[in-house]
Amino acid sequence: MSFHVHAKDLLGRVGTIRTKSGAFDTPHMFPVLDPYHQVLDQKFFEGAKIGAVMTNAYLLKRGQRSSGIPDVHTTLGFNRSVATDSGAYQILEYGGVQVKPAEIVEYQEKIGSDIGVILDVPTGFRSDPSRARWTVDETMRRADAALESMTREDILWMGPVQGGVHLREVERSAKEMSKRDFPIYALGSPTELMESQRYDILAEMVVAAKSNLPKGKPLHLFGAGHPVLFPFLVALGCDLFDSAAYALYARVGRYLTSEGTQLLGDMVEFSCPCPACADLSPAEVLNSDPKQRELRLVQHNLWACFSELRRIREAIRRGRLWELLESRARVHPALMDCFARIRSHAGLLESFTPVVKPHGIFHLSASSEDRPEALRYRAMLPGSTDERGRTVLVLPGRWRRPFHEDPRYQVVANSFDDHRNVSICYYSPSWGPVPIELDETFPIAQAEGRDLGDADLYQSKAGDVARFVKTLRPKSVILVSHGDFGRLVTEEMRKTLGKRRVVVLDGEKLKPQAIIKSVERKIA
Amino acid sequence: MSFHVHAKDLLGRVGTIRTKSGAFDTPHMFPVLDPYHQVLDQKFFEGAKIGAVMTNAYLLKRGQRSSGIPDVHTTLGFNRSVATDSGAYQILEYGGVQVKPAEIVEYQEKIGSDIGVILDVPTGFRSDPSRARWTVDETMRRADAALESMTREDILWMGPVQGGVHLREVERSAKEMSKRDFPIYALGSPTELMESQRYDILAEMVVAAKSNLPKGKPLHLFGAGHPVLFPFLVALGCDLFDSAAYALYARVGRYLTSEGTQLLGDMVEFSCPCPACADLSPAEVLNSDPKQRELRLVQHNLWACFSELRRIREAIRRGRLWELLESRARVHPALMDCFARIRSHAGLLESFTPVVKPHGIFHLSASSEDRPEALRYRAMLPGSTDERGRTVLVLPGRWRRPFHEDPRYQVVANSFDDHRNVSICYYSPSWGPVPIELDETFPIAQAEGRDLGDADLYQSKAGDVARFVKTLRPKSVILVSHGDFGRLVTEEMRKTLGKRRVVVLDGEKLKPQAIIKSVERKIA
Repeated sequence: MSFHVHAKDLLGRVGTIRTKSGAFDTPHMFPVLDPYHQVLDQKFFEGAKIGAVMTNAYLLKRGQRSSGIPDVHTTLGFNRSVATDSGAYQILEYGGVQVKPAEIVEYQEKIGSDIGVILDVPTGFRSDPSRARWTVDETMRRADAALESMTREDILWMGPVQGGVHLREVERSAKEMSKRDFPIYALGSPTELMESQRYDILAEMVVAAKSNLPKGKPLHLFGAGHPVLFPFLVALGCDLFDSAAYALYARVGRYLTSEGTQLLGDMVEFSCPCPACADLSPAEVLNSDPKQRELRLVQHNLWACFSELRRIREAIRRGRLWELLESRARVHPALMDCFARIRSHAGLLESFTPVVKPHGIFHLSASSEDRPEALRYRAMLPGSTDERGRTVLVLPGRWRRPFHEDPRYQVVANSFDDHRNVSICYYSPSWGPVPIELDETFPIAQAEGRDLGDADLYQSKAGDVARFVKTLRPKSVILVSHGDFGRLVTEEMRKTLGKRRVVVLDGEKLKPQAIIKSVERKIA
Repeated sequence: MSFHVHAKDLLGRVGTIRTKSGAFDTPHMFPVLDPYHQVLDQKFFEGAKIGAVMTNAYLLKRGQRSSGIPDVHTTLGFNRSVATDSGAYQILEYGGVQVKPAEIVEYQEKIGSDIGVILDVPTGFRSDPSRARWTVDETMRRADAALESMTREDILWMGPVQGGVHLREVERSAKEMSKRDFPIYALGSPTELMESQRYDILAEMVVAAKSNLPKGKPLHLFGAGHPVLFPFLVALGCDLFDSAAYALYARVGRYLTSEGTQLLGDMVEFSCPCPACADLSPAEVLNSDPKQRELRLVQHNLWACFSELRRIREAIRRGRLWELLESRARVHPALMDCFARIRSHAGLLESFTPVVKPHGIFHLSASSEDRPEALRYRAMLPGSTDERGRTVLVLPGRWRRPFHEDPRYQVVANSFDDHRNVSICYYSPSWGPVPIELDETFPIAQAEGRDLGDADLYQSKAGDVARFVKTLRPKSVILVSHGDFGRLVTEEMRKTLGKRRVVVLDGEKLKPQAIIKSVERKIA
């Protein structure tokens, strides 16, 4: 029973959870199985490499035959890891049923669950603050009662965090639950937020929980099972999900993709090449018998979820999770909103992201300004050079990296690189000021970006360049202007340092040797 | 032998090409097969639903055995549509070989090609303007000679457009080639641009050709075979591609995805669920025998290409090609650049896009401003209402559509909707001014968008609102301000119309009834 982390990016991580029945990789989604309506067999799960499922302990208990307590693995016909939900939600739903926390723990222990959930009280979406407070307190009391009653040590128990949309309650719940030693923590009540596409509030809920829970433990999010949300939720630190959506959607002809839900009846061809889609057309599936249709959709929906989870794991391993978010955010306006929320927690994301990455990163647009590498670059900048009071030679940092190898300006840079009275600083539409000292460091030299002529980005970066050069207390500034961005840098530099201290050379007209001569004259 | 179009979006379209050997859907990529090194059999192509391939007529001719002229379908073991390239590129490459245009036509006729290419002269990437001009002229002369020599009427011939990066030559070439009646036109020389990721120039080349060719004919782009580029090239009007990249990449362990190329050795798991990936891990494929490894990669690479083509076809059918571009542009900075170029041709894209779409559209960010629906909306706006000289009631257009059903302001709108001295206009961060007359029309009522608090978008849309309201020559303006955007609209309105003519009511503080009373007092 353990959780090992192999790779990290943003708050996301790739890990392995080991239970008494085997190991599986995270981020992972437990497909929720109905013990009384089984559509899939173990062979499918093996083929799709799904190492852990979930079922509802309460429903299992309710449907229990007289023959005694069932073994959950036998009942499901699944010999790898099985998680069980306490059924708290159903208990509330059906009302009136009195089940004690200890009873539910005992039952999960007896049926042989690998991962269990204590009997919490879901806050739900519509609770007012006082009801939310009560659900948090009552969940804590039940957690204590449950911890008291546990007898087996080979089950990974989840400690549920509640509070719903009341973020302070979520924070309090997370802090309190952290004091109890659960191997896994879990966040409840997101379902209605997902259904109403309030992914922005959902993001805040996850942040409130995650930032108050022990970092080394996995975080489970109850009831999340749509692939469009996985990249965002993983980026915020969720390691585990459970959902029956794959099956519920299948029953009504809904087909999950990383770009959203489609109706089978609306589709002409499958772009998905999974085993459930590769050989048939949507019309053929639609017209097959209802059981076959449901089976195909169930299988596809799971392949869609696990493809996306694998894509996310690969993105984390490559250090490209931010890039995945950039792309996936454009799949729906509600995801743009979610991404905007995530970006507003840039500092938190930064603190969890590795300092050096196996692959270069991409600077795509203004939104890339919030990525951890950009934050770090801006933080590193002020201390990057101790040269003060010199002539600062400001050169264009264009597409070629490192900038000093740009064939157009290489000889210029080489001529003054070791000059004791000259400092060299590049200006880049992605990074703003890049002193030559940082030109070969991560992420500058490993980042790909293009000059897209974005006027707002130009304006903000030109200001950054001028302000940075001012901090060098330059004796004088010689600026080689190139293109529209160069003109804007010129303007900002003159505004910030005064016209007379800035000499501007036209990089588009002058040859390198002419630039060198001009610079030599100025510093002579 | 025909080309039928079933659906259109931007310059992209879904069609069917019928040859003497069968039909296949476009956009389509002809996998280029090496007749002397065949890795795949017909069964694979059937399973992957690939209805047309390509091979090189010149290489076939060179390798020809003494036993006489082969049949191309028999040689390839493929009984569906086979396209043949003339081998012009190879002829130039190996030099000195004299093959006459008529000879190459005759050979393709004899081997039974379904789709043929005349012997053109590729301009290439590095030709100067005079060389480019010559290649265009010489290709035209050869086209005329080829057309002269054709004897079969059951072959679809491609008329190649050349000119390389010299856009005027591309335009001239397209115009001239249009005068010849080819069933398919083709654009040459993009390979080096793709290799150097100059997708921006590539986009301009395609536009130069496409906008000067007959609209009803398919456009083929030579040598394009990476799935990351397909959405962009299709959006610009390419219907057909051919490529051997899927096979060449496979030989060196390169794995194609819609998000870029990966090295097999760098991958831990496959997120692709295609038949070539579903059952093995990257390490298992890497360690299998070289032939097996190549076969797996070849198969996966083709699945990746055709998955993306199917995704594009579905996006066109749903009217969501723009949305696909928004997402795919974020996959790499060079694609952002390509998308920026595409957006600069907004007018051209608009002229090919259906006026009404089967599904609503998404307003994602400032880049959505260039989509055809946004252009049309702005064009429609000035004539949308003939009410002049009234009091204009300016209300917030928030998340709920149509705006007049926003529960917060519904009663306000209802109270004055039929008032003969009042016009109602909403302000929306996605659309700017929305007069109530347009509130229920496409795309306003069918568009999803979120208020992401984008300051630049606010500024530009607030100005649009004020300018539009001014065109109504209002007697007075009553503006219900809500949120940051409302405050900016207030500012712009006061600037444009003068402080005294704008009455501002605080939508966040006032109840609907209070707003109604205030408005009634003002118009009394």
